[in-house]
Amino acid sequence: MKASVVGASGFTGGELCRLVDGHPEFELAQATSREYANRTVGHVHPNLRHVDLRFTEPDELERVDVLFAATPHGVSMNNVDAFRAAADTVVDLSADFRLSNEAAYDEWYDGHDRPELLAEAEYALPELNRENLPGADLIAAGGCNATATILGLLPLFEADVLSGDEQVVVDVKVGSSEGGAGGGRASSHAERSGVVRPYAPTGHRHEAEIQDFLGLDVSFTVHAVDMVRGAAATCHVFPDEPVSKGDLWSAYRGSYEEEPFVRLAAGGGGVYRYPEPKAVAGSNFAEVGFELDPANRRLVVFSAIDNMMKGSAGQAIHAANIAVGLAETAGLESTGFHPVGAP
Amino acid sequence: MKASVVGASGFTGGELCRLVDGHPEFELAQATSREYANRTVGHVHPNLRHVDLRFTEPDELERVDVLFAATPHGVSMNNVDAFRAAADTVVDLSADFRLSNEAAYDEWYDGHDRPELLAEAEYALPELNRENLPGADLIAAGGCNATATILGLLPLFEADVLSGDEQVVVDVKVGSSEGGAGGGRASSHAERSGVVRPYAPTGHRHEAEIQDFLGLDVSFTVHAVDMVRGAAATCHVFPDEPVSKGDLWSAYRGSYEEEPFVRLAAGGGGVYRYPEPKAVAGSNFAEVGFELDPANRRLVVFSAIDNMMKGSAGQAIHAANIAVGLAETAGLESTGFHPVGAP
Amino acid sequence: MKASVVGASGFTGGELCRLVDGHPEFELAQATSREYANRTVGHVHPNLRHVDLRFTEPDELERVDVLFAATPHGVSMNNVDAFRAAADTVVDLSADFRLSNEAAYDEWYDGHDRPELLAEAEYALPELNRENLPGADLIAAGGCNATATILGLLPLFEADVLSGDEQVVVDVKVGSSEGGAGGGRASSHAERSGVVRPYAPTGHRHEAEIQDFLGLDVSFTVHAVDMVRGAAATCHVFPDEPVSKGDLWSAYRGSYEEEPFVRLAAGGGGVYRYPEPKAVAGSNFAEVGFELDPANRRLVVFSAIDNMMKGSAGQAIHAANIAVGLAETAGLESTGFHPVGAP
Amino acid sequence: MKASVVGASGFTGGELCRLVDGHPEFELAQATSREYANRTVGHVHPNLRHVDLRFTEPDELERVDVLFAATPHGVSMNNVDAFRAAADTVVDLSADFRLSNEAAYDEWYDGHDRPELLAEAEYALPELNRENLPGADLIAAGGCNATATILGLLPLFEADVLSGDEQVVVDVKVGSSEGGAGGGRASSHAERSGVVRPYAPTGHRHEAEIQDFLGLDVSFTVHAVDMVRGAAATCHVFPDEPVSKGDLWSAYRGSYEEEPFVRLAAGGGGVYRYPEPKAVAGSNFAEVGFELDPANRRLVVFSAIDNMMKGSAGQAIHAANIAVGLAETAGLESTGFHPVGAP
Repeated sequence: MKASVVGASGFTGGELCRLVDGHPEFELAQATSREYANRTVGHVHPNLRHVDLRFTEPDELERVDVLFAATPHGVSMNNVDAFRAAADTVVDLSADFRLSNEAAYDEWYDGHDRPELLAEAEYALPELNRENLPGADLIAAGGCNATATILGLLPLFEADVLSGDEQVVVDVKVGSSEGGAGGGRASSHAERSGVVRPYAPTGHRHEAEIQDFLGLDVSFTVHAVDMVRGAAATCHVFPDEPVSKGDLWSAYRGSYEEEPFVRLAAGGGGVYRYPEPKAVAGSNFAEVGFELDPANRRLVVFSAIDNMMKGSAGQAIHAANIAVGLAETAGLESTGFHPVGAP
Repeated sequence: MKASVVGASGFTGGELCRLVDGHPEFELAQATSREYANRTVGHVHPNLRHVDLRFTEPDELERVDVLFAATPHGVSMNNVDAFRAAADTVVDLSADFRLSNEAAYDEWYDGHDRPELLAEAEYALPELNRENLPGADLIAAGGCNATATILGLLPLFEADVLSGDEQVVVDVKVGSSEGGAGGGRASSHAERSGVVRPYAPTGHRHEAEIQDFLGLDVSFTVHAVDMVRGAAATCHVFPDEPVSKGDLWSAYRGSYEEEPFVRLAAGGGGVYRYPEPKAVAGSNFAEVGFELDPANRRLVVFSAIDNMMKGSAGQAIHAANIAVGLAETAGLESTGFHPVGAP
Repeated sequence: MKASVVGASGFTGGELCRLVDGHPEFELAQATSREYANRTVGHVHPNLRHVDLRFTEPDELERVDVLFAATPHGVSMNNVDAFRAAADTVVDLSADFRLSNEAAYDEWYDGHDRPELLAEAEYALPELNRENLPGADLIAAGGCNATATILGLLPLFEADVLSGDEQVVVDVKVGSSEGGAGGGRASSHAERSGVVRPYAPTGHRHEAEIQDFLGLDVSFTVHAVDMVRGAAATCHVFPDEPVSKGDLWSAYRGSYEEEPFVRLAAGGGGVYRYPEPKAVAGSNFAEVGFELDPANRRLVVFSAIDNMMKGSAGQAIHAANIAVGLAETAGLESTGFHPVGAP
Repeated sequence: MKASVVGASGFTGGELCRLVDGHPEFELAQATSREYANRTVGHVHPNLRHVDLRFTEPDELERVDVLFAATPHGVSMNNVDAFRAAADTVVDLSADFRLSNEAAYDEWYDGHDRPELLAEAEYALPELNRENLPGADLIAAGGCNATATILGLLPLFEADVLSGDEQVVVDVKVGSSEGGAGGGRASSHAERSGVVRPYAPTGHRHEAEIQDFLGLDVSFTVHAVDMVRGAAATCHVFPDEPVSKGDLWSAYRGSYEEEPFVRLAAGGGGVYRYPEPKAVAGSNFAEVGFELDPANRRLVVFSAIDNMMKGSAGQAIHAANIAVGLAETAGLESTGFHPVGAP
């Protein structure tokens, strides 16, 4: 099958190129970039220096089977007709088609130009809703921080530990790749190295996504820390009723033991006792774990993903695999590395 | 005045040596280390290679005016008589004399060998209780994570925004120097670089200190992140009554505008809009700031310190200055650096 | 084919487990570790938490096709008979069988216990001597810093730019994984972060390997810098005769254009103009490039590898593939990542 | 005395503000910035948030005693008359007045607009030529990489180990602050973290400065590594005659034992055996050390500085202190820190 990547010079675009190029069933037909048209893909993404492919202009789309759009927010909604004309299956990695209703776009974004498509688009976080994806032709891959949070909390809903009106604080730590390839003073190495920086103290847009798909209002705060890839969500949960470790293990095993991309890590010995971005860097795995704090009637849930993989490009490939009927793990088998520096 | 540092080969011990050596009123009389006795101080602390002083055995204490004890938990309580025999003023940086009652040591530590001294010792977090310190002869410098948290929340108590029964989640991010100089596989560079690691998911002992001095039970979680010095506490606070930005500015200015070591940073433009460890690294400053989240009836408080300074050695010098009647800022005037890498 | 990893709890051992587990033709039969026997492989290597395998004792070796020995220097020479009894093909990653003669072991190491095997063992740096490897049953994978250096300089010998008596300074920068999983104060995160540390100012043992296989005495210095994986060699070369850029491109293309794991990067635009460890992290690629300095009659050659891959485990798999007749790239197809933090 | 900083929103400008603000004899009169005029100094330099000073326009210079110019190359030569009209002593931190003759500016830069001033300006690297500085009214502070190199090699000239025609390779490793505050894709955190990047493979302009002041042609290569502050020069020296360790200790002690800002570190035990940027970060110290490599007839010299201090702002203050007759160490007494992350 042929696949293209639109917006291929950005970070998620480059990751999609890597994944499509290594995918057993996809062939990378086009990688578009207005800024770098006619330069090699490896000029921008040095890990792909050995790949013999040049960027093309985004308005010269060839006909393919799957098109991945890795463009900034607002671009896909204005180009969706062209994307759909070029491909049977369109997977969008921006926020343009994630939320289910126009009102949410009015509240959290700057409105929506094609609200009639919102009902048609399928949100893709396979662990949550893979049943919606086979045959879908317009797919919105879930956002990185929302994915980490939803994967952490989903078993609590499935096991009725949470019903949606509980108090939950989500304190997220993210790497610099979430800011994109653009640069700017705040993301310069000298200013960004070694930070613990309140990046979105309140009002992060992924709150809307969590509200939409878990039915839960979370108190959400995002910090920038010193890594490039990775997102770690710590959910401080206050259930109405006490819950035991056994209950939790049942809930998490019940939700995830068949999942190909979710690993549980909750205590035990050694250095890596809980989920960590380092442990999943470079892979499509999410790690989820928990700890009880009975004195404070609190449950602490940890989840960690590589934001470039499970939080964007890997999730998009996963969704496409389901949509077109391939094995879910096709092209996503690689594990992470140990040891690795800042992911 | 003469001052000594016991336990001088550790990280806080080395920082005390640096501060005492540069202090306008103190002379560094002794730096003790059993392991490195007779080696130069600069052998262990390369920043002090130019200092002409060798470590001495810890049981050969000279008579001095002020003795700083930077020994592991449990050592000071067993050596306190020797320390007090050697110095008029003893400032202990361990947890041995911080809590006010023996029961808390039974609950959070392994009990206490000298409980009769607990009432006599003065806890030192000058912004909280400087009035107790003049003339004090046994001082327990506040712990790093507790200091960051208490400084963040104190104005809310002083302005009656909090009374002590509210729900507060404290999510702390710390550097590797908090683990001390010992090493071990978990703190090796290859395993520790780039982490977001749940270091104390629940049950961190500084909860006891916060309970003792703020009268507040907090849900406390500590993460290790990729920096060496620094502690950043994010307090997710749910006040009973709505509070405005104006109220908050009044509260924080009221508490801190005369404080020599507290800076407010809450919004505004630029790269550094909120407290950050990078901004205070190498200095005794704490930064405190906040943001409102009306949709979640939440108040988010950020505070950042250099754990080696305001969180230990700097705080100890500050307390000693007050105890012996010097200017509070003596020896602590240095600011931090910009730019700086991982602090 | 069945493969085992001896010394599997170390860093290179873990990397071998990852590669064997993902290899299309190998099945991971055993991973041995005295310290962690009966624990899961994922207990030590968190990237492999999903792998259902436990460490076994090193003296209970099953019969396999290929055995990889990732043990410290001196262990393989004492266990080589057991290794060879257990496997048709033994690939040793230590220095025990790299050098060609006993005298070199006397000079650079602490002698050799099985010198009669040195002639029998094949050194493996496939770009240099792949013709020796088919059917080899005792293989010594080339060392990381030697590999980076030899790959940088080899085309200059093959094109007669160098003959072996020229002056060459090799200034290498390495990550912390080269120090192994052991830890110790010098490799603790607090002491090792952000360093530029003369790690082997002179007398590094890989000088012997370069001398042995290039016939060149190099002035060799190794610095530790802040990354975990990666080795970058900068070779300052003073050829006897002037050389042009065209000559150099011919030489490097001639040596490497058919090589599956060598990429050339020499100038051009963009951010990544020369070889960089970041560009190859996680992959078996080596990058090689150069720049001319006519004013100083100097040629500067840059080469970069992931020391855990092309510098050890990847090179070992590559050699085993050739030895047993598989495709050279089997199990080594993965590219690196972009962006990535400290590799 | 009053002092101003022109170009105060850049990195070296901010460091000058910090140093002047903390200087016992200087008062910070003005800090100029066209971009940030009327904003507080702390808006850009968060370490100075407590300082009550706002940036002013650069064309409204008040009359002061000392003016520090931290402007980009080419600015000072065009504004030098205004600077000298505003201050008795002008210390320029750019390259505009460092070299001694116009021809060198034609060769290494884009020529010079005020060549008649080159003879009048004094180059300032006090360990090399402090005798020229008392009373100087136009001073060019030495460049960072040149300073590190010259300090490493100077004793070899003073002790006649080198005469100027020997082969010397200088391999320098620098932090991201050398690139300035501007940003750009190559210096973004995601692209710059964890690098070992050939930054100036050949032809770095500081070669000219070393040639001018040591009379030595060096083969000079600069690598970017993962730190923010710091420059480490490794000089691979091939003396004509063999030299002993004793000779070297005599040479280096002879040159530097009276120097307030140079420390020797050459072997010995412990973690920090040689010069390291980490050991001097935040201070005006340079560390210098060496190792012999008799097999290669080589001498390896290591030197390390904080490029923001000894490599620019600290050196400028040092020079100003000498020029106006203050104690050399005034305002520069602070040591570095231990431990510290990436400096």
